[in-house]
Amino acid sequence: MKTLIKNVHLLSMDKQFSEIKKGYVLIEDHLIAKIGSVSELDSVTISADKVIDGRNGILIPGMVNTHTHAGMIPFRSLGDDVPDRLRRFLFPLEQFMTKELVKASSDYAIAEMLLSGVTSFCDMYYFEDEVAKSCKEMGIRALVGETIIDMPTCDSPQPSGGYDYCEMFLKKWQNDPLVTPIIAPHAPNTNTPEVLKKIVVLSEKYNAPITMHVSEMTYEITEFQEKYNQTPIEFLQSLGYFEREFILAHCILVNDHDLKIIEESKGKARVAHCIGANTKSAKGIAPVKKMIEKNIIVGLGTDGPSSGNTLDLFSQMRLFANSHKTYHQDRALFPAREIVRLATIGGAETLGLAKQVGSIEIGKKADLTLIETESVNMFPIFDPYSAIVYSANASNVESVWVNGEQLVRDKKMVYHKLDKIRESLYREMREFVIEAKKR
Amino acid sequence: MKTLIKNVHLLSMDKQFSEIKKGYVLIEDHLIAKIGSVSELDSVTISADKVIDGRNGILIPGMVNTHTHAGMIPFRSLGDDVPDRLRRFLFPLEQFMTKELVKASSDYAIAEMLLSGVTSFCDMYYFEDEVAKSCKEMGIRALVGETIIDMPTCDSPQPSGGYDYCEMFLKKWQNDPLVTPIIAPHAPNTNTPEVLKKIVVLSEKYNAPITMHVSEMTYEITEFQEKYNQTPIEFLQSLGYFEREFILAHCILVNDHDLKIIEESKGKARVAHCIGANTKSAKGIAPVKKMIEKNIIVGLGTDGPSSGNTLDLFSQMRLFANSHKTYHQDRALFPAREIVRLATIGGAETLGLAKQVGSIEIGKKADLTLIETESVNMFPIFDPYSAIVYSANASNVESVWVNGEQLVRDKKMVYHKLDKIRESLYREMREFVIEAKKR
Ligand SMILES: [Zn+2]
Ligand SMILES: [Zn+2]
Repeated sequence: MKTLIKNVHLLSMDKQFSEIKKGYVLIEDHLIAKIGSVSELDSVTISADKVIDGRNGILIPGMVNTHTHAGMIPFRSLGDDVPDRLRRFLFPLEQFMTKELVKASSDYAIAEMLLSGVTSFCDMYYFEDEVAKSCKEMGIRALVGETIIDMPTCDSPQPSGGYDYCEMFLKKWQNDPLVTPIIAPHAPNTNTPEVLKKIVVLSEKYNAPITMHVSEMTYEITEFQEKYNQTPIEFLQSLGYFEREFILAHCILVNDHDLKIIEESKGKARVAHCIGANTKSAKGIAPVKKMIEKNIIVGLGTDGPSSGNTLDLFSQMRLFANSHKTYHQDRALFPAREIVRLATIGGAETLGLAKQVGSIEIGKKADLTLIETESVNMFPIFDPYSAIVYSANASNVESVWVNGEQLVRDKKMVYHKLDKIRESLYREMREFVIEAKKR
Repeated sequence: MKTLIKNVHLLSMDKQFSEIKKGYVLIEDHLIAKIGSVSELDSVTISADKVIDGRNGILIPGMVNTHTHAGMIPFRSLGDDVPDRLRRFLFPLEQFMTKELVKASSDYAIAEMLLSGVTSFCDMYYFEDEVAKSCKEMGIRALVGETIIDMPTCDSPQPSGGYDYCEMFLKKWQNDPLVTPIIAPHAPNTNTPEVLKKIVVLSEKYNAPITMHVSEMTYEITEFQEKYNQTPIEFLQSLGYFEREFILAHCILVNDHDLKIIEESKGKARVAHCIGANTKSAKGIAPVKKMIEKNIIVGLGTDGPSSGNTLDLFSQMRLFANSHKTYHQDRALFPAREIVRLATIGGAETLGLAKQVGSIEIGKKADLTLIETESVNMFPIFDPYSAIVYSANASNVESVWVNGEQLVRDKKMVYHKLDKIRESLYREMREFVIEAKKR
């Protein structure tokens, strides 16, 4: 199967930021087979089963959401501005999460991501086998990690029961072309040191990456300071985490020594930066400028729908630009192109997927996002990167391909109906809603 | 003409934040004639020429954009991350602005605002007679102010030539039902004290409000400190500005004495807060928390399409929430309801329009915005204010009424075609584009 996408402003996001103003891409099965300028199409013969006119839209690599919780759609718009939301809403309501609800929520969350141009994501929650199934059904690429936490959870009556679930899950999903099973300890302060140590061993045994919330909470920092006279990152280093492939979500409260540890992992440890969730919850602004200066790999994450509310990266890119520029009092810091980089190839590097996806280059998997430029907010365009970061929103995404397959066309899913997915989710949410309204 | 809008979650934004979960509004000619719960509709007979099913959308007062430059669409995405953008792009390219280009740009900007649920705005630029004409043609409500600045401009070869234009303009547009002509000195540091004094007299003569960029630039503050040992606001007070209706855009660099001056104007002076433009340009975060504590009237503004890029208030609301919460390290500060207040009735108060618009109350003009809840980002909704601030984007606006007239339906303009408006604008931009690309 060959698909030709033509008449697009192609932003390759390769190392040279190569651009083709009126370009085309030829997809052959799962792969990007050819890239060029439309002007050549007269002289070069390209046979394709399907030709798509991009109508001067902007074609970018599919975006990568490096940290989210697809199962948490039911929590959206619940207690947003409440001081102790975690303990008042999140933990107590989590017990009403069922396997069916996680599946329905994941279908919905993945629909939302695909419709907004996200083609890969990294997930952490419960019943992750359901999330993995949902990825397969919806056709998205993902790293999927079962949460391990030192308390009873909705999918395990025993504290740290996620560990056994995780091992089962790692075995089951090995070598899947779309789903990479990973291990997701919740946070350094919500697991015992013993379990944290076992997790490193598990990661070695299955050659599985780890993701964790790290250096997000002030009380997390205080606790490690008091108990071990260490930062959470120093503590995790002592357990061997920085010799594993390790995706650290947040890293807001990190000091220079922490950054040195991440830097010295030489790309094994990478940061999922969730600017929207971090600023909405007033936790602060992670030192991404320093990270980039130290060549630390950084990607953007939305966090869950209860923390960041939307699962698209457009809102994250704009919040990123405005927050970091203001924080450093430098309007030239992080020009738009750098921010689009973080949302695409930067994210792919963060998830360890950069050999497969994250840029539009021949031989890579065809994960692509086409942004239309006909909506009122998208004119004029002197700089397509600026248009993406400062003008566009999730609704400008017109078409999306994952692994060569077109999953979104004309702003709608090709194989699924949003109405049906929402109805299923709403049905599964009944008990959750009753409990939520009591709070 | 009577229009009944039913099956909406009605957020009145009145003083009590009254809400009706399944409500209706009856529009009679220009006015809101009746408000109630759909359940009453069985017992109460309401005759209407037209019935609109809101399909569980959220109905809010039309949003108010308290500071923009509708004529500046040509500048969008040009030099966004460049340090001295004002002197490198804005001032030099302004000479290529023509009367026709300002008209075409204003049509486009107003289309963008209407499509995103903005029903009133406050404008400041050149050829403002064209902007006023555009408001009439498009049907939007606005305060329209000709810029006065101490340099030659695109519509006046003499420095401060805007003053005479302004007087002509004030006479011409008096008593218009939609357009309120106002006076728009560019900034305290870009006008001579003599002209600034004359402007107060002009404002008195025509009973016209004034709008101005104030306390936005560090060099503005330094200059007034050195010249007068005063802040710009102290200086303007000495000239009588705080006895006039005065809309101050930005107010980022204000001290407690400045705030006291604004406070003591007892509502005559009000602040147009442009969080998006201010943070994108790394100028800082205006002390809105303090302003609100002092009962200073505050509204939200997008600033121009070159500074804030988009003219919708959804992006501003989200940036507002995240920026101010983080700045004050308080996630409970400015709950979503307060932010929707700033975007609606707060904006109407800022523009002196609160008796007419800004809330859904019987007897007020029917300026209304209907936000659909069927798009993927709008589910679930436990709190409609949260959904508006944290989940919605401009593309969720389904229908818009100004002065009782429906101007947007099914996300499209009723009386105008976006394609045609864009074509006209693009045609008028030809020379501008050639010059812009040289820089
Ligand atoms: Zn998280
Ligand atoms: Zn301005």
